[in-house]
Amino acid sequence: MDSVSSLLGSIEDVGRDPSRGGYSRPVFSTAELDLRSWFQQEAGRRGLEVETDRNGILWAWWDPARSGNEAHDGDSRRGALVTGSHLDSVPGGGAFDGPLGVASALAAVDLLKARGVTPHRALAVAVFPEEEGSRFGVACLGSRLLTGGIDADAARNLKDADGVTFAEAARAHGLDPAHLGRDDEALGRIGDFVELHVEQGRGLIDLKAPIAVGTSIIGHGRWKLTITGQGNHAGTTLMEDRADPMVAAAQVVLAIRKTAAATPEARATVGRIQPVPGGTNVIASRVDLWIDVRHPDDATTAALVESIHGQAQKAAAFEGCTAALTQESVSGTVTFDAELQRQLQLALPGAPALPTGAGHDAGILAAHGPSAMLYVRNPTGISHSPEEHVEPDDADLGAAALADVLERLL
Amino acid sequence: MDSVSSLLGSIEDVGRDPSRGGYSRPVFSTAELDLRSWFQQEAGRRGLEVETDRNGILWAWWDPARSGNEAHDGDSRRGALVTGSHLDSVPGGGAFDGPLGVASALAAVDLLKARGVTPHRALAVAVFPEEEGSRFGVACLGSRLLTGGIDADAARNLKDADGVTFAEAARAHGLDPAHLGRDDEALGRIGDFVELHVEQGRGLIDLKAPIAVGTSIIGHGRWKLTITGQGNHAGTTLMEDRADPMVAAAQVVLAIRKTAAATPEARATVGRIQPVPGGTNVIASRVDLWIDVRHPDDATTAALVESIHGQAQKAAAFEGCTAALTQESVSGTVTFDAELQRQLQLALPGAPALPTGAGHDAGILAAHGPSAMLYVRNPTGISHSPEEHVEPDDADLGAAALADVLERLL
Repeated sequence: MDSVSSLLGSIEDVGRDPSRGGYSRPVFSTAELDLRSWFQQEAGRRGLEVETDRNGILWAWWDPARSGNEAHDGDSRRGALVTGSHLDSVPGGGAFDGPLGVASALAAVDLLKARGVTPHRALAVAVFPEEEGSRFGVACLGSRLLTGGIDADAARNLKDADGVTFAEAARAHGLDPAHLGRDDEALGRIGDFVELHVEQGRGLIDLKAPIAVGTSIIGHGRWKLTITGQGNHAGTTLMEDRADPMVAAAQVVLAIRKTAAATPEARATVGRIQPVPGGTNVIASRVDLWIDVRHPDDATTAALVESIHGQAQKAAAFEGCTAALTQESVSGTVTFDAELQRQLQLALPGAPALPTGAGHDAGILAAHGPSAMLYVRNPTGISHSPEEHVEPDDADLGAAALADVLERLL
Repeated sequence: MDSVSSLLGSIEDVGRDPSRGGYSRPVFSTAELDLRSWFQQEAGRRGLEVETDRNGILWAWWDPARSGNEAHDGDSRRGALVTGSHLDSVPGGGAFDGPLGVASALAAVDLLKARGVTPHRALAVAVFPEEEGSRFGVACLGSRLLTGGIDADAARNLKDADGVTFAEAARAHGLDPAHLGRDDEALGRIGDFVELHVEQGRGLIDLKAPIAVGTSIIGHGRWKLTITGQGNHAGTTLMEDRADPMVAAAQVVLAIRKTAAATPEARATVGRIQPVPGGTNVIASRVDLWIDVRHPDDATTAALVESIHGQAQKAAAFEGCTAALTQESVSGTVTFDAELQRQLQLALPGAPALPTGAGHDAGILAAHGPSAMLYVRNPTGISHSPEEHVEPDDADLGAAALADVLERLL
């Protein structure tokens, strides 16, 4: 029986990013594919049967109704209990965001077997691709495809920074792009979904507790803003003759900060910006920047984006540029299923309840059936950074808590 | 005898950049190496003897003192007349910035031969590497190495965006990194240097003239500013808890615009910015941005940079970040040799005289001997952009003007 730390230890060298620090494990990269192989091996070691569905989601089944019985009605997996998370990372991310939930699920299976638990329904450990949206821009892409939360054509046409479409990347990974999209059979197998995840804020630090039950995920979305100006030579173009999209972009970054800071509970961020062509001695002809906006009230999120869009148009026009805003993904605020939350709290007496500002596949799946989350304390409170951390003892407490929850629900 | 347009036509497909538009031909890239091969072939077709010196500068010699005479004293090339330019480009640059000077030099050799000119001293067409500094950050790197204007160790350690050092790139191209640096023998061969270049502003448009004689290059430099904050999750980190280097960087971009706009004749630009790690849902931990500053008065350039540095420190501190400024290259304002300018004007009666805000190898070489420039009209006035242009007739007038100048000086 492996501890969560020893499971994570076996992948600690996969996808390290020497320039950014931490890990860069974008979907379908060598690193993420190595992690998928690792998962398949670990699941196999536990006697779980691994399938890849048509959206690239991995499912590792513990299904007593099927074992030793070649003839089966095929329905034993409908309404199963599903746990899991993702293996992809943001660029330069931490070791726990995603893999902690996967490793804890495997460790929880070990614990349940050691306790002699016989599932009354099938249990699956699932791994969702492109949860971070780091490569193709849409967060939770795997669960959105599964649930039809994104149009299959739109997903096929998503492009990474090198111009590779999601369809091409999926095909290279052995998926048939024509079969991407809503999968009612796979969806019907999820009776209840429970995702364990490293906490991405300071809630558990302040509460001095190792584990929390999730209550809600605040709504969030991503938009791409393209500001177009006039590319020119940095030395020969007088300041008064410029239409410099970088100057307009800087105005927009400050407007976003100011607008979000003035709106209680709002968060708005520009973490990615790309001038074109991007030369030191060149006035950019275009600047692309990506805006991440979140608020517990969906109408407020929409109003924030509208305000930012208006300010961007104004800043661009003032500089002689134009600005165009494109939505990349939007998810409304999700409140997790009340009855499932109650079951988690009965399984974990005394565990605090916490909302989160971070998006998760559990939030996407919540629109289609009972879904819940467990958070494990992060002593730095920092996430999407190499500084993200989980103490080994807290990780094992997390796996035990997940086992308690699964045992109660099986 | 080839027209300048047909010479440029033969390389019009080399290094096209489909995403940015125009051309991306960084030093020692496949595209730039293809252009070097093209130059070697074209020089060979003209009976010129091509050498690569230890800094990667190509020299194509027309040296009557050596022809048909195996035994020579080796001094026939001292004090030669040298013309030429560069073949590398900014990312997404135009077709003329650099190659026009090289193609015009080859066409001028054709014209001189057609006129039956016999050189009284050796003539060389030179191609300088990394004039734009697009890959390793230091503009005019080839001529700076030749003249000792950059320390050889500093040059060897310059890194491109992938972390490849200039020493490694030079070695891969067949140069010995240990032999990079000031080359007195090569330098002694340059008696006079004349560079023809596409104009990068609107001077000749306003003057309704095709060709101008250069008077001066305004001083310029490049600095890299690194702002370090606290990387974190874009959803879970409250606005008031952030130390976001992107917000500080935006303040700096606006401060640079404001400071330069308030200083007559100053130009200051941020055309390149890179957040680390650069994820949409990640508050950056660091932002690197590059600042290009130019002014005819060197003391004013220094004062501008000092002011920008102070404002950057202040903006960074206000956001809970730190800022560090590093100089990448600085060149003082250059006034071209008065006697050589007079000779050019005698060869080209009526040609206007123009200063420029763009840096050139001729500016670096001016500190070591008589150096001069010719500019050819650019009907868009736009440079470092796919929109840069030269009409075929103007290009041929440029080659003829260069031939007139070389004939007078030979």
